Amino acid sequence: MADNEAANNEAVIAELTLDEKAALSIGGDIWHTAGIDRLGIEPIMVSDGPHGLRAQFDTGDHVGIGDSVPATCFPTASALASSWNPDLARRVGEAIGREALRWQVSVVLGPGVNMKRSPLCGRNFEYLSEDPLLAGVLAAALVQGIQGQGVGTSLKHFAANNQETDRMRVSAEIDQRTLREIYLPAFERVVKEAAPWTVMCSYNKINGTYASEHRWLLTDLLRGEWGFEGLVVSDWGAVHDRPVSLTAGLDLEMPPVKGRSDVAVVEAVRSGALAEADLDRTVGRLLDLVAKSRSARAAEHGFDEAEHHSLARQAAAESAVLLKNDGDLLPIGPGVRRILVIGEFARTPRFQGAGSSQVNPTRTDVPLTELTALVGDQVSVDFAPGFSLDDATADEGLRNEAVAAAEAADVIIAFLGLPAASESEGFDRTDIELPGNQRALLQDLGDHRDKIAVVLANGSAVATSTWQQNAAAILECWLSGQAAGGAAADLLVGAVNPSGKLAETIPVRLQDNSSYLNFPGGDGIVRYGEGVFIGYRGYDASGLEVSFPFGHGLSYTSFEISEPSVTVAGSVAGGDLAVTVTASVTNTGDRAGAEVVQVYVGDPASIVPRPVRELKGFTKIELQPGQTEEVTVTLDERAFAFWSERLDRWAVEAGDFMISVGASSRDLAGSTAITLDAPSVTGPITRDSTMSELLADPAAAVLLTADPRVAGALAAMDEPMRAMFGDMPASTVAGFGFLGFDTTALDAMIDKLNLQS
Amino acid sequence: MADNEAANNEAVIAELTLDEKAALSIGGDIWHTAGIDRLGIEPIMVSDGPHGLRAQFDTGDHVGIGDSVPATCFPTASALASSWNPDLARRVGEAIGREALRWQVSVVLGPGVNMKRSPLCGRNFEYLSEDPLLAGVLAAALVQGIQGQGVGTSLKHFAANNQETDRMRVSAEIDQRTLREIYLPAFERVVKEAAPWTVMCSYNKINGTYASEHRWLLTDLLRGEWGFEGLVVSDWGAVHDRPVSLTAGLDLEMPPVKGRSDVAVVEAVRSGALAEADLDRTVGRLLDLVAKSRSARAAEHGFDEAEHHSLARQAAAESAVLLKNDGDLLPIGPGVRRILVIGEFARTPRFQGAGSSQVNPTRTDVPLTELTALVGDQVSVDFAPGFSLDDATADEGLRNEAVAAAEAADVIIAFLGLPAASESEGFDRTDIELPGNQRALLQDLGDHRDKIAVVLANGSAVATSTWQQNAAAILECWLSGQAAGGAAADLLVGAVNPSGKLAETIPVRLQDNSSYLNFPGGDGIVRYGEGVFIGYRGYDASGLEVSFPFGHGLSYTSFEISEPSVTVAGSVAGGDLAVTVTASVTNTGDRAGAEVVQVYVGDPASIVPRPVRELKGFTKIELQPGQTEEVTVTLDERAFAFWSERLDRWAVEAGDFMISVGASSRDLAGSTAITLDAPSVTGPITRDSTMSELLADPAAAVLLTADPRVAGALAAMDEPMRAMFGDMPASTVAGFGFLGFDTTALDAMIDKLNLQS
Repeated sequence: MADNEAANNEAVIAELTLDEKAALSIGGDIWHTAGIDRLGIEPIMVSDGPHGLRAQFDTGDHVGIGDSVPATCFPTASALASSWNPDLARRVGEAIGREALRWQVSVVLGPGVNMKRSPLCGRNFEYLSEDPLLAGVLAAALVQGIQGQGVGTSLKHFAANNQETDRMRVSAEIDQRTLREIYLPAFERVVKEAAPWTVMCSYNKINGTYASEHRWLLTDLLRGEWGFEGLVVSDWGAVHDRPVSLTAGLDLEMPPVKGRSDVAVVEAVRSGALAEADLDRTVGRLLDLVAKSRSARAAEHGFDEAEHHSLARQAAAESAVLLKNDGDLLPIGPGVRRILVIGEFARTPRFQGAGSSQVNPTRTDVPLTELTALVGDQVSVDFAPGFSLDDATADEGLRNEAVAAAEAADVIIAFLGLPAASESEGFDRTDIELPGNQRALLQDLGDHRDKIAVVLANGSAVATSTWQQNAAAILECWLSGQAAGGAAADLLVGAVNPSGKLAETIPVRLQDNSSYLNFPGGDGIVRYGEGVFIGYRGYDASGLEVSFPFGHGLSYTSFEISEPSVTVAGSVAGGDLAVTVTASVTNTGDRAGAEVVQVYVGDPASIVPRPVRELKGFTKIELQPGQTEEVTVTLDERAFAFWSERLDRWAVEAGDFMISVGASSRDLAGSTAITLDAPSVTGPITRDSTMSELLADPAAAVLLTADPRVAGALAAMDEPMRAMFGDMPASTVAGFGFLGFDTTALDAMIDKLNLQS
Repeated sequence: MADNEAANNEAVIAELTLDEKAALSIGGDIWHTAGIDRLGIEPIMVSDGPHGLRAQFDTGDHVGIGDSVPATCFPTASALASSWNPDLARRVGEAIGREALRWQVSVVLGPGVNMKRSPLCGRNFEYLSEDPLLAGVLAAALVQGIQGQGVGTSLKHFAANNQETDRMRVSAEIDQRTLREIYLPAFERVVKEAAPWTVMCSYNKINGTYASEHRWLLTDLLRGEWGFEGLVVSDWGAVHDRPVSLTAGLDLEMPPVKGRSDVAVVEAVRSGALAEADLDRTVGRLLDLVAKSRSARAAEHGFDEAEHHSLARQAAAESAVLLKNDGDLLPIGPGVRRILVIGEFARTPRFQGAGSSQVNPTRTDVPLTELTALVGDQVSVDFAPGFSLDDATADEGLRNEAVAAAEAADVIIAFLGLPAASESEGFDRTDIELPGNQRALLQDLGDHRDKIAVVLANGSAVATSTWQQNAAAILECWLSGQAAGGAAADLLVGAVNPSGKLAETIPVRLQDNSSYLNFPGGDGIVRYGEGVFIGYRGYDASGLEVSFPFGHGLSYTSFEISEPSVTVAGSVAGGDLAVTVTASVTNTGDRAGAEVVQVYVGDPASIVPRPVRELKGFTKIELQPGQTEEVTVTLDERAFAFWSERLDRWAVEAGDFMISVGASSRDLAGSTAITLDAPSVTGPITRDSTMSELLADPAAAVLLTADPRVAGALAAMDEPMRAMFGDMPASTVAGFGFLGFDTTALDAMIDKLNLQS
């Protein structure tokens, strides 16, 4: 914020009455901030839309009953994340920004960077990944794309909104380390790298306090630690007590509860319960937001619908993940003459989810139509729906019809997925299976499995373990927006080579997910008992087989990644650690394609339980057949750190770290161990330090073993005795008088250490 | 405590100086309380010993370096628990009590009723079960047995001491529901049913506060809720700040840190930091304890070593669990002429664990000797050690020798188990495998698997999945005390019919255990992230195969348990619910034997995640061949309740409960559903009640749907919309103005409901 703006704000605020300031701290209506005509403070419009604009100009409500203006429906977050391509996310963001400008929308309410803690979360299709790095990198690019157009974003839902069940009240009980390592880093990255104009607080409580009233979250962390300078807006309906939320750092209540929240603010200022300075600060942030949006609102804008649709198609194609492709069934080969398309989704595509993110698309690609157009006149395309989306009694007949048609087909493309009613904002799933009628269809087609390619449309992970034996190929397209049908056709015929990678693991069983015993909680509480071990971190730590691992995705060509070469520069102590990881990638097949080189870091010996490996960098690279390129990823200190609750900060332990590169989290091309030096992470020596800690501290060890009785006793101990003593606090050892060591000697030693340090 | 005792205490306390009172609040030496000669307050002796006395009369230290007097080593807790026989536990307790009297020991420091949260806990052999009911019932009987002799007990380690790693400092982070349902009930039952003279606080912290300083734990809960009237003693070395611990409710510091703790108490009273009344209360409890022990100390006592050894042998036999017995390999049949005994443990038995519980046995049964004696002259018994306990280089030769001897044998009895160094107080295991040399031995003997019976000696669970295919029979004997060798022989030849049942699950993989990702924590913290789902509750909830389920155990005869018949009397509302479960059991084989009929309760639909089924009652019954008996278990309200954090009390939900009876947690003879009526557990209707809660409340539903706009809108909703609205707090719905419902209407409705109630 420029100095003159700040000065201007100050002057405006001085002119405002208390009532006016209170009015500005809540919205003007459901989609607009409040305006004050006499001071030229304009209302600005905000609209839903992480994957496309949902701008409502009627008095429609929040939950999608009212129509919105036509807008390009881009791939949903779960799809876009599978592109692992921040540049693509940026271009999509730019397009969304242009469409917002067209409608004079000043803030697009997204993206959502909540972690996919459980595959059951009903809103997973709006979220990017089970990994905070991947989510953060892609969301930062999206925000940069949108905001580059002069349109704001709202990073949401801050924080720990990882389920829909009881979402407006449930308390997410999460320890600090888990928050810091898993649930906050995507927010942190976007705030630091992309400076979103606004952040949206979530509905839920965190450790007992509503996010909307969470001062540590909204102020100490967001502004104090991360340097956020924008405005914090409530999720729609998340405010319970306007003055309390305002003090906590919530700047704008949406939608406004007029006559109640504004009155409460005025009363609280008058009673002294709310500092007027806090209200002024909040109003200042609103004025900043209005000012930032001013130049864009001043002009008229248009956008090219066809161009945006084309981008949507390209994005959808890059977001699809080829999970399996036995016998290179895909792409559809030149010898194929008869294609049988089955699945109601081939003519009734599902490409986005229900709820506040639902876009009114400018057009819709129908897969069957697109595929038919692409294969040309020489190939026949037949269709059988195979199952019904709304009439279960029709299923058996539809199945029989599909089976009857199967024999004559050279290849069968089955468009399967989740019906709209099975996933939405507002409720969670209770299982991760494809509907029974679709699995039965594949079962009945079992004799033809070698020529069946399944194309999936679903917003969150579905198990494949119960049916994947009945298909040779699976192309996971997620909910990929209005051009999903065209993109699927492009991929099926090989016009586009698949390059998506899973942003979330496909488990064998729902019960294998580490959150299973604690999702969605109950009685007002959900405990994040699995801690940092969500997604692949959990499956890996428990040594569980998965159907398809995080980071997995096939191509129509093949790649070879080399062993990594790693160089270490700087140091942890110096605060300038830079670890450079280099690997070369070769396209060893006969088509152009793109590979995502993934860099994982593991700390095999730690004082805290750490994941086997965690994604710490990645890069996507396009290669011509036979081409080799070198890719480099640089890792800073944070890539090796855990959050120490004892030290209340990030901490890197001295010792070995394992750096791996690969094409997925379980397809590693090679691993290299590096050894880092670092200061102790166990804190200063105190009376309650254990004997192990004393002996590991050079100064303490010298003092301790200076007494020959102690040194002798330690030397004489066998392994079990050493282990038992090792975990004893010095104060306990002294209390017993073990080793001839008493409390006076201990106090003297601690005093001496404190003098030395 | 009689009135005259209390009056007497008061008089004595009035005579004591502050220094004397402070001296009494800590011990006199490591194994004695302090005495005050001039007032006739005698020091009394306490000794380790949950499964036998470890009375030390030299200046030996706490951790087993010093010798203790000879005492009968009874089966350790993990063994005794497998008997599922409280009467047996009582008789063992009586014997331990008699031995304590012999040495004028006034308090035996046990039993330990901590839950086996992880099979890795190094001290699991001292604990009873992964199930709080089973642990509580058996420990109560043991306490009654010991105290019936006029000797006190110390119920330990209170509470949540479920690991050895960092045990003296680590903070066990546990939510209230998990504490109440899993980690506290065994303590609660013993306190309420058996009134132990003392309770021993644990070393660890609970949610950040040392158990020794945990006022809620030691006073509010233990005395306030449970009615404990005895003395609270510290675990040895668990006190960090004597005045703070005294205020919290810790009566006796052991061992005394003289010159520090007593001085601190005097100073704290003088400064006013410690109320003298609190000190007086603590001294009064010590005086009570001294008084209770007086009559027993006044007399001389002896005990019959041979009789106690015989009881130890009987107890060990009843504690063994026959895990598998393919082809009825056991008992050793009349046709067997040549027995090959392998395994170093056959001649070097391991029958107890290391640490403070280690007893100096009066004699030791050697399995090889006992078996040889029992089979008589007509049968040859050869021996080959098969592996070395301390010299790995000898293993291959020993294996080859055993394999060479195998061919000629009619049956092979393999005595396997964990070496002493692999489990102990003071450290945790890192895996649950049998040592590699023992598994290799079985592997090499693979051709003879049909005639191999494995006899196991181990204190905590070992995986069988990696080798059980190489044995026809497995007899799990745990660490079963000095007569373990004789008991094993009794079982092998069929002189005793196995009747033990697993008190802990044998998982397929360590990683399947629900605590795996959170054990043993680190950086000073261990999070009980799996919540109530420990042991079988976790395996069942996650649908995991196990090697042998909780409650499992075979017999040389067979039993048939009928479907249960269930009658419900009383009600939850009336506070007099009594559910009577009856089943008949028939011995359908040709030998006398005993079966344990287990009663499990499940609540299939709950507002909180609940285990599939939980043990709520059991009874062990001996039956002659062909005999049928009826067994009855009565369940009270608590058997159906969960701990509601919202209501801060036990709560039973109205609805269906499933009552199952069976021979193990996964071998159910039948299940019966019952329906209970009960008051709402969601609390009163407030502005933050959800629409679902409003509609479920009869009075609120009437008021809400009185408005035709609301009724109409609700009726028009589809399923997803209904789910979304259902989870919305009324205040949020009103804030949006949905359904024509605003904040004024909501307030009016809440006011009206409050008037009605």
